[in-house]
Amino acid sequence: MRAEIITSGTELLLGDLVDTNAAYLSRQLRALGIDVHYRTTVGDNEERTAAAVSLALSRADLVITTGGLGPTVDDVTRQAVAISTGRPLVLHPELVAAIEARFRSFGSQMTENNIQQAYIPEGAVVIENPVGTAPCFAVETPTGTVISLPGVPRELEYLMEKRVIPYLRERFGLHEIIKTRVLKTCAIGESALGQKIDDLMQSHNPTVGLNAHAGQTDVRITAKAATEEEADRIIAEMEAELRERLKDSIYGVGDQTLEEVVLDMLAKRGDSLAVLETAATAQLSQRLASVGAEQAFRVGIVIGDFRELQALLADAELEIAEGGRAPCAMAEAAAEGMRERFAATYGLAVLGTVSSDETPFVAAIALSAPNQAICRTVQRPTPDAYNRTWLATLALDMLRKHLLRLQTSPEQSPRTKDIGRE
Amino acid sequence: MRAEIITSGTELLLGDLVDTNAAYLSRQLRALGIDVHYRTTVGDNEERTAAAVSLALSRADLVITTGGLGPTVDDVTRQAVAISTGRPLVLHPELVAAIEARFRSFGSQMTENNIQQAYIPEGAVVIENPVGTAPCFAVETPTGTVISLPGVPRELEYLMEKRVIPYLRERFGLHEIIKTRVLKTCAIGESALGQKIDDLMQSHNPTVGLNAHAGQTDVRITAKAATEEEADRIIAEMEAELRERLKDSIYGVGDQTLEEVVLDMLAKRGDSLAVLETAATAQLSQRLASVGAEQAFRVGIVIGDFRELQALLADAELEIAEGGRAPCAMAEAAAEGMRERFAATYGLAVLGTVSSDETPFVAAIALSAPNQAICRTVQRPTPDAYNRTWLATLALDMLRKHLLRLQTSPEQSPRTKDIGRE
Repeated sequence: MRAEIITSGTELLLGDLVDTNAAYLSRQLRALGIDVHYRTTVGDNEERTAAAVSLALSRADLVITTGGLGPTVDDVTRQAVAISTGRPLVLHPELVAAIEARFRSFGSQMTENNIQQAYIPEGAVVIENPVGTAPCFAVETPTGTVISLPGVPRELEYLMEKRVIPYLRERFGLHEIIKTRVLKTCAIGESALGQKIDDLMQSHNPTVGLNAHAGQTDVRITAKAATEEEADRIIAEMEAELRERLKDSIYGVGDQTLEEVVLDMLAKRGDSLAVLETAATAQLSQRLASVGAEQAFRVGIVIGDFRELQALLADAELEIAEGGRAPCAMAEAAAEGMRERFAATYGLAVLGTVSSDETPFVAAIALSAPNQAICRTVQRPTPDAYNRTWLATLALDMLRKHLLRLQTSPEQSPRTKDIGRE
Repeated sequence: MRAEIITSGTELLLGDLVDTNAAYLSRQLRALGIDVHYRTTVGDNEERTAAAVSLALSRADLVITTGGLGPTVDDVTRQAVAISTGRPLVLHPELVAAIEARFRSFGSQMTENNIQQAYIPEGAVVIENPVGTAPCFAVETPTGTVISLPGVPRELEYLMEKRVIPYLRERFGLHEIIKTRVLKTCAIGESALGQKIDDLMQSHNPTVGLNAHAGQTDVRITAKAATEEEADRIIAEMEAELRERLKDSIYGVGDQTLEEVVLDMLAKRGDSLAVLETAATAQLSQRLASVGAEQAFRVGIVIGDFRELQALLADAELEIAEGGRAPCAMAEAAAEGMRERFAATYGLAVLGTVSSDETPFVAAIALSAPNQAICRTVQRPTPDAYNRTWLATLALDMLRKHLLRLQTSPEQSPRTKDIGRE
């Protein structure tokens, strides 16, 4: 079973609006087990919309259109579907009455042009719209079904969930289950990861796909099956194989974030964290704050300049770097100073400043634990938003891996200095 | 001149990702005066991607693809374009060298599968990619041009602006000038703003459009003209009228950010700023840090809990709130404590915590200036990302308006307490 989605609206083609309806419809169809092979966006143009619907009908069993059902002259979907399905538009007096009633419920009057909305293709199934004025409809043709829905996200979502999905389940006898599970990885590059699971990415059921962000890659497992249990089993088998190969590169699943996972690990141990960042590397404080785990996240400080560090951590022995480089000695002292100053179990410091004559940019990431200090320096071309994300991810992952090691060997090792360089 | 955009990626068709690249490309092409008639999204499938490119080439003069240029087996754009343009893929050793060099600059090694990225259609024009590993290309065919760009937004945007737009201007002799100028406003609602300029928004050349974010609204003036000078003149006239009506609601132009403008005002006066936020309201530190103005931005602190405040500002007289509400007295003490502790000219505090039984969420925003303290409390339904942005914007605007007042009446007023409530 194949579907295509057609989103219409000149504002989409002009780029004034990001097409969130397309993603929404895609997710809904996926959950029904319907494959979407193409999505097309057209402007408010009758001829081109009709051409898009005809092409989609020639390739797919189901075509869903959104938008273009309003009362103005640039709302062309009704006419376009009429042309491409060869059905003339017919006025439905009961729809005129429904539109009038909706206007009345707002204490206002229907305008003349709203009557346009009550014309739908001959023989179409009316889909009542209790959340807006635009009536919607489904046209059954010998080669496929066309369903036309409004472009207002709130209306679209209501109609899709309350009317269209039940209609499609019934109409197409959809009993297949599609389930997805996302494994979240960090601190491993997409290509390195891809090489480890190259063969698994060829699998057809489940499929395995990658989606890379800064310092993180999502591994998406998607299974089709006749029952929920069967889908779960297919996913679980693939997940076991992926976990075997990717080990502790996997930090979570679904929509878990790395900062959530780390703060959760800390909270479960009754531990807490204080972080310090330079303006050039700042992102950690913001990410940790957004989790809403105030007990584990004690404080995050962003300093404009290394000099503030001494003012802040008066007791710490700091070797303030004059150039752009933040040496590990300084980052470790900062991480330790934060840990002590705020009585936190762990301190993390991500330090780097931009000196004009220095390329690439070098940052030092240090973790101070009760009996241990770890530091690494990393090099990036520039300290832009992407690289801030990447540095914050590396810092969080440094703490995560430390906490994982504690789980496997709970006796803390004697104080060591473990200084690496990448 | 007609264009089509093809965005590829199974994650788009599954709805895991909203297609922001499509909107970005649409805006860029509009600014060149190129009409986009269709946009198509396809999955990571060679045959369907090739079919989409072929169809687009049959209808348009220009086809731009994004995505599918990575190193893994599900990156199929190179092959698809090769098929649809009838050009075999050819290995470019100089591209292999460029990819290797890029990996080296990160201190890591190219993997075997990255070599795939150096194969491009025979006769294609190479578009160097200094911001990523995926080489891009343009294929000129008798019926049209196909340009293939990466799907990573940061790379796509860089390449579009630095390489593709100059290429298209030259290739298609695009000489009509379309210029846009954006006036940035804050702390005025979109509808209030719209009412003030309702008549100007009906204008055809230039057009005036609004784009609202959290607490900010962009006013976009777009002019078409035969010459640069003519376009500038049309825009300047409209800008003068808009400034007359919107006054100090306009804080900047173009891609200036509010935080940039505020730090710039401070830097010019030799002034500096220290900020304090609660985790539930944090965003200010991150936004200020991202500007890169280390002299004016002294320090930003995010506290997990009000209790850290006393530890941090040992000398300040703090009345620690036990419930969720952060009273103005506390926010002012925090702002003043920060100002003194870090020897900054100004202190800003945005305080609020989430107590389970409190709806709506109330935050206090305080500014401490050398001779003055200002505070306001604001109420929002929840402390989500949108409202954090909104609170940080209000705080920055509080400081901006204070600095504007100093410009017009430079003698500082005697110390006053100016406590408002919204």
